[in-house]
Amino acid sequence: MQLPFLTFLTPPNWFPSLCKTLLLQAPTTQAESGSLVMAGVLLSLVIIYFASKVGGELSNSLGFPAVLGELVGGVIVGISALHLLVFPESGAESSNSIIITLLQSTAGLSPDSANATFSSMGEVISVLAELGAIVLLFEIGLESNLKELLAVGPQAAIVAIVGVVVPFAGGTVGLIYLFGVPAVPAIFGGAALTATSIGITSKVLSEIGRLTSKEGQIILGAAVIDDVLGIIVLAVVASLAKTGSVDVGNVLYPVISASVFLIGAILLGNVLNTSFVAIANQLKTRGGVIIPALIFAFVLSYIAAAIHLEAILGAFAAGLVFDETDKRKELDKQIVPIADMLVPIFFVTVGAKTDFGVLNPAVPSNREGLIMATFLIAVAIAGKVVTGLAVFGQPGINRLAIGVGMIPRGEVGLVFAGVGSASGVLSEATEAAIIMMVILTTFIAPPLLRLVFQEPAIAKPEKSDASISD
Amino acid sequence: MQLPFLTFLTPPNWFPSLCKTLLLQAPTTQAESGSLVMAGVLLSLVIIYFASKVGGELSNSLGFPAVLGELVGGVIVGISALHLLVFPESGAESSNSIIITLLQSTAGLSPDSANATFSSMGEVISVLAELGAIVLLFEIGLESNLKELLAVGPQAAIVAIVGVVVPFAGGTVGLIYLFGVPAVPAIFGGAALTATSIGITSKVLSEIGRLTSKEGQIILGAAVIDDVLGIIVLAVVASLAKTGSVDVGNVLYPVISASVFLIGAILLGNVLNTSFVAIANQLKTRGGVIIPALIFAFVLSYIAAAIHLEAILGAFAAGLVFDETDKRKELDKQIVPIADMLVPIFFVTVGAKTDFGVLNPAVPSNREGLIMATFLIAVAIAGKVVTGLAVFGQPGINRLAIGVGMIPRGEVGLVFAGVGSASGVLSEATEAAIIMMVILTTFIAPPLLRLVFQEPAIAKPEKSDASISD
Repeated sequence: MQLPFLTFLTPPNWFPSLCKTLLLQAPTTQAESGSLVMAGVLLSLVIIYFASKVGGELSNSLGFPAVLGELVGGVIVGISALHLLVFPESGAESSNSIIITLLQSTAGLSPDSANATFSSMGEVISVLAELGAIVLLFEIGLESNLKELLAVGPQAAIVAIVGVVVPFAGGTVGLIYLFGVPAVPAIFGGAALTATSIGITSKVLSEIGRLTSKEGQIILGAAVIDDVLGIIVLAVVASLAKTGSVDVGNVLYPVISASVFLIGAILLGNVLNTSFVAIANQLKTRGGVIIPALIFAFVLSYIAAAIHLEAILGAFAAGLVFDETDKRKELDKQIVPIADMLVPIFFVTVGAKTDFGVLNPAVPSNREGLIMATFLIAVAIAGKVVTGLAVFGQPGINRLAIGVGMIPRGEVGLVFAGVGSASGVLSEATEAAIIMMVILTTFIAPPLLRLVFQEPAIAKPEKSDASISD
Repeated sequence: MQLPFLTFLTPPNWFPSLCKTLLLQAPTTQAESGSLVMAGVLLSLVIIYFASKVGGELSNSLGFPAVLGELVGGVIVGISALHLLVFPESGAESSNSIIITLLQSTAGLSPDSANATFSSMGEVISVLAELGAIVLLFEIGLESNLKELLAVGPQAAIVAIVGVVVPFAGGTVGLIYLFGVPAVPAIFGGAALTATSIGITSKVLSEIGRLTSKEGQIILGAAVIDDVLGIIVLAVVASLAKTGSVDVGNVLYPVISASVFLIGAILLGNVLNTSFVAIANQLKTRGGVIIPALIFAFVLSYIAAAIHLEAILGAFAAGLVFDETDKRKELDKQIVPIADMLVPIFFVTVGAKTDFGVLNPAVPSNREGLIMATFLIAVAIAGKVVTGLAVFGQPGINRLAIGVGMIPRGEVGLVFAGVGSASGVLSEATEAAIIMMVILTTFIAPPLLRLVFQEPAIAKPEKSDASISD
């Protein structure tokens, strides 16, 4: 749905010829098409960064996590609204792209090569977005800590497991029996409900001064375990989506390969750790820490992709491994600007590719998607709130706060939507419903958390720069 | 020229079927081709980083700048030797690419989609390399300082101007009259001889403890001016290459637009500076400094590309502008890991795309290229050594040392080769000769500099991490 008031953004007829006159433009030659792809990529990145910063800052100033604003910013510049950032795979044509129009009027792109430039641009931005997801999961892996997981103990584990099983089962069964969705996309939809956003959760807890409470510790520990479980679920589901059907081999193979891969990577990583530190200490030129780390992360990502898991699973495993090394602090510091540069491309692109037109209630055929979104949101909230009831041996603990703390979905949920969209199994309505669910759970968690923690919030915000997700 | 002993790298016949059995591979579906491009990009990046680190560290341990090793590493993994990193535009086919062979045997790439995957991979890596060049020039702009340029005064300026004019004129005239090269590629060849590598020069001077000597100061100042002149020359020449002929309009337009653009960007930038600092101070979410800086750099890069200059000129101007802000130190620190990640892609790709097969002396038709390389190297050395003679009002100064200090070409020379190759005006022999020239001038400068500074070198190496080019 292109909004009618945006037509003024289309340059008038005389604009191209004026530009040509002013700039003494030569006609496009074949040799130039490469540099026009580059020009298009630069414009796309400017739009992405602008959307992510305006969205992120507005969201932050309203008390919501920045990642939420980046996502909404992407929706606004994307296929649903401004058409500044559109992609061939979401059905857009080069004539729909305002960047292509701009390249034609200001940089001398010829109409003949518009389609090729449009599709190359889209491919490059999609790969950059995926690199953003890889760097994000690497960073989350770095922030996660295997030993901490063991220390927070059984309470966190039970909360995590209940919080994965209940929404997954509820979502999948509901989608199949209430909405008649086929098994694979239904499992995808259910799986997207599983992983709590560790970044968003820890950010919100620190903002209301509850990060170090007993409830806060359990929430954090469960969110970490949850993340790992969610990524294994993602691996299973994405593999199912790729082969298209559900049978025992299809279920067992990814479960086994995901487990073997993750455990193997961490065991091997713990052995290679020492070599890594030794090598990094020997390297005297620039990038002596970050480049070996990226090599390891990219190798694991490649292996994960090659054995039909997801590349991000490899990046997460690499992050977990490096978390244990002496070089971690240096790596932590160096990955931040790289993540700042690449991760927003991922969030904005996810938003931009989502066509909210399919949720427009004015169109009768869309109503099913809207009802589905409402159902997913209800399961997403209920499925996490019940986790508090599973906590044992902690009299007087605020069970409701624990459940509410698990509500926000984030990165991993969006990764599900992105993977589902890329593998083509999710209908547009289901994908939009998942993104709606992520946006809404992220929206409602901060005010709900303030509410259930009853006492006035102790304002002790940690430095935003130090948190993961925004 | 593929080396015969490398045939063992090709997997044996039974390997793919073994992998298929082990991995329960499904046949490639259309939806999967996107993730195979990503897998190919990840493998390419692993190869690039491996080549850059091994090359850079070896080079560094031999007393040469790391960038030299990255370049040679690229040559070794590229079209000239191992064929690990090859590109469609240098005439390679997907069957020549070891990455494509690996994707076919380990990740289930079907032969039908091999060509499409190969060309998409190449496109993505080329854009990443160009982003690397943009980040590199942005960083060089940040390191350069307009005020310093004015302070080092007339000596540095005269050295810079002589050191641009003499090699440019000598190279161009020689290529036209001695080798019968047409005007545009000859001008390109001459222009590639102009810019001293500020990164390499400052690194070498600091390594021999001469950075703060009077000679060192003049060399550094001249190298900075030289860089700016070189980039303007590049803009002029690249524009000539694009339109294909030399006439007054073609020469005047880029001179004027480059000057107007650079001066305009800096003047406008100085006004926008205050807004930038104000905005960056207001931003509370992650990337509050780097994202606005990247938006500015990419906008200037886009404008530069759109008015038929080079994108890197915009990035350099953006760097110069930010050099003047309060946020510079923060920006300096944050750009380092981003440059560490992206710049090696540029250097390795330049090396990998260069086919040294055309310089093989065993093939009679190659001998012209070899003689041309010898000529360019002679002009490159002589043209800079004479600059010492131009220094005035400094009795007792080591004129030879100043001239020798200006010899190493680097980033900008490689950018010339890359731009020339992309715009299709350089013959393979000329391009290979330019890269040979860059490699050789970089090789001989450090030992020559030690020699001309006579007294035993005072070993006071600065931390490698602090220099620009490696």
